[in-house]
Amino acid sequence: MEQKAQQETQQNREQKPRDVLRSLANADDAERLREYVKSIGVNETFSAILRLSVDDREKVLTTLSAEDAADFIEEIPNQHAAEMIQKLSAVDAASILNEMESNDQAGVIGELKAASAKAVLAEMPPEAAANVERLNRYDSDSAGGLMMSEFIAYNEDTTAAEVIAGLSEREKQPSSLGMYVYVTSRSGKLTGVVELHSLVLSNHSSPIAFICKPCLSVAEDAPLSELDEFFDRYAFLAVPVVDRHDRLLGVVHRQHVAEALADNAAATYRKSQGIIGGDEIRSQPLLLRSGRRVSWLSLNIVLNIISASVIALYQDTLSAVIALVVFLPIVSDMSGCSGNQAVAVSMRELALGIIKPYEIMRVWLKEVTVGCINGVILGILLAGVAMLWKGNPWLGLVVGVALAVNTVIAVSIGGTVPLILKRMGKDPAVASGPILTTVTDMCGFFLILSLAALMLPHLTVS
Amino acid sequence: MEQKAQQETQQNREQKPRDVLRSLANADDAERLREYVKSIGVNETFSAILRLSVDDREKVLTTLSAEDAADFIEEIPNQHAAEMIQKLSAVDAASILNEMESNDQAGVIGELKAASAKAVLAEMPPEAAANVERLNRYDSDSAGGLMMSEFIAYNEDTTAAEVIAGLSEREKQPSSLGMYVYVTSRSGKLTGVVELHSLVLSNHSSPIAFICKPCLSVAEDAPLSELDEFFDRYAFLAVPVVDRHDRLLGVVHRQHVAEALADNAAATYRKSQGIIGGDEIRSQPLLLRSGRRVSWLSLNIVLNIISASVIALYQDTLSAVIALVVFLPIVSDMSGCSGNQAVAVSMRELALGIIKPYEIMRVWLKEVTVGCINGVILGILLAGVAMLWKGNPWLGLVVGVALAVNTVIAVSIGGTVPLILKRMGKDPAVASGPILTTVTDMCGFFLILSLAALMLPHLTVS
Repeated sequence: MEQKAQQETQQNREQKPRDVLRSLANADDAERLREYVKSIGVNETFSAILRLSVDDREKVLTTLSAEDAADFIEEIPNQHAAEMIQKLSAVDAASILNEMESNDQAGVIGELKAASAKAVLAEMPPEAAANVERLNRYDSDSAGGLMMSEFIAYNEDTTAAEVIAGLSEREKQPSSLGMYVYVTSRSGKLTGVVELHSLVLSNHSSPIAFICKPCLSVAEDAPLSELDEFFDRYAFLAVPVVDRHDRLLGVVHRQHVAEALADNAAATYRKSQGIIGGDEIRSQPLLLRSGRRVSWLSLNIVLNIISASVIALYQDTLSAVIALVVFLPIVSDMSGCSGNQAVAVSMRELALGIIKPYEIMRVWLKEVTVGCINGVILGILLAGVAMLWKGNPWLGLVVGVALAVNTVIAVSIGGTVPLILKRMGKDPAVASGPILTTVTDMCGFFLILSLAALMLPHLTVS
Repeated sequence: MEQKAQQETQQNREQKPRDVLRSLANADDAERLREYVKSIGVNETFSAILRLSVDDREKVLTTLSAEDAADFIEEIPNQHAAEMIQKLSAVDAASILNEMESNDQAGVIGELKAASAKAVLAEMPPEAAANVERLNRYDSDSAGGLMMSEFIAYNEDTTAAEVIAGLSEREKQPSSLGMYVYVTSRSGKLTGVVELHSLVLSNHSSPIAFICKPCLSVAEDAPLSELDEFFDRYAFLAVPVVDRHDRLLGVVHRQHVAEALADNAAATYRKSQGIIGGDEIRSQPLLLRSGRRVSWLSLNIVLNIISASVIALYQDTLSAVIALVVFLPIVSDMSGCSGNQAVAVSMRELALGIIKPYEIMRVWLKEVTVGCINGVILGILLAGVAMLWKGNPWLGLVVGVALAVNTVIAVSIGGTVPLILKRMGKDPAVASGPILTTVTDMCGFFLILSLAALMLPHLTVS
């Protein structure tokens, strides 16, 4: 089998993966398509499928067995999984989704357009559909949003022997279900947990109530940060999620918390760079990509025009000392750089939980000292350049002082704005940058030009 | 016990955590210190310890038992763990490190200064020290750098009964060691794997060679991307790492791969914002923080001065049409915004493995189309503002065309530079930003000013 797949790979080496996918799908060769997909892996398959036409993508996904298609769809980002699922018939989509785990089902269906989601849910078994709808009511970064509905739980009266017998029947996917057996009371309350190995080493005739250990759990609305802290503190692979009556709802796995943290960190980066309102990959339709990007840019250009309008107030000063013009973009760019460093440090300290959103004063004091030192260094550097260029120390003084003062302003804003946004319940990754650059540009332009206006007689001497 | 801890927490509620830590440590009350640390959790403890003096930090860490201190040190970022360990005596540091798992030991010691690392290793058991040195020779984002040396392996002749007996003896930390038992030949070659539950359900008198299944493995130098793909493809919780003779070296756990991916994503964000050469938290010494930030800023100001020098070549044009000055920072900032979006999309596609670093042409074509659409939209917007402000359509034409063309340039550079840097083995998160802004600023200033120079008669009419 392995060898056969290798031979196939060799035969296909000259062809591009997307062409191989297309020809195997069009030949309806489900078995060889499956082997080829396995041989190149999820990422390569994803990359190749994206380069096919929408029709060919559909053909590949429907030629694969629902199980194989599900294995692939589960591993790509939900948003892109939804884009592919959306193009299939509701029946095909539902049969693929039926092969997926509950949290993956909920993740993909949550990204579908409302009408498609409804159509797909109608084709799924009613119980599974209800479960997906229940999961999707949770915030995606809460315990409820991250939990799997699949878990192993037995009533406390069950004997160890019965549990072991039950486990060997369902032994299909033991690793993905984790190795904990949860114990519940008749009313569904979580009463304890048994680890697989202690179950087996126990007296098999005793009810599991006697074998189980007390069990920690988290509330259904526990945020991601609490789950992160939980898995930092305890070596468990999973934690049960309970409602306020202690009833067992699902299980959050350590790996899903780690994956959610990775996704959030990557999203923070993209949002700070202006990729907002949905992630982009370059095989998406041109107008979608352009539209999402330009909506962000349009906001920014308005902010930019507002801050640059400060310059228009000083046209006389600028006419008198045209050399100042060179320094306006430098002050604007450098203040952005200094401020963004402070934003990044605040974002990290918030993520690590070592500052609280209300500690604005502490952050500000820490930033002011760094800002003073770095402002003086950068100010002297720029002043030196200005003096060397025009031979006028007053010009150096103006641009140097402006940059130094504006650096302090930039780090003050950059350090504190993420905390303020967080307190207001806004996403600091999205809004910190535009707020920072708008304010520091305005302050920078104002500083350099008003100082120049004050010292105009000295500046026009040379 | 729980109740006692709760009472203590209540008593301590009015005091700040750092004061509680200090007073418990100074009272040498190891037991209550331990309970307090457990009750507030790792993040809160980390936050509080950072606010203590260096002496008090040392006192807290040495008052805790080595095991409790290790539990804390393991969970904070390696760089900050090393900063704390560095201040302890080598003996104290070694006794804490001895309680940690091999990969955490290697991670922290890898961040120590060479002299401290040597001193600490000298105090550790020779075998553990040699193991740490061996692990630290691997790239930290490779299978060797991510693997744990702790794993359960038995020779293939061992019977199931012997393995089970052995396991119940070492039963200390079964979850963190995972639930796989690896099977090796006499020469140490990996020959298979037994899952815990199939071991227990097997005939206990047979050698594990008969129970074990064939086992997938990764090479010691497998990169993080390959591990990510592996765990995407297979539902295993861990994968064994082998050398080129198939000898078992260690085990990489799924959670460590997810954590490494999260760390990398967060580092990408910080590097793009100019936090380079070591992560910052605000309790670090002022000069360290300022120095790291300013070294990055100094490079940027030099690049900024170079690009702004283009403006100096057009002073006559600017003197004639002083209104142009307002638009220079706008074009500079907006080109940065557009280009950064393209950088972020390229970074994501590289991380997802859906573009290869050599696909520069494909990325460029995809960016040019988006750039044309968005450039035209932004150009018209800015041209409109310029016309309304000065009533001169030629001014609108100059700034609009300059912004439109420069948007295309910015997305072309932003999209392709990360791929080029990746091919050159450089970190695109660090270098893409400065390269992008320098080139697009120069082009933007040149475009706006040379167009204005060409159309000078029309611009000076009004």
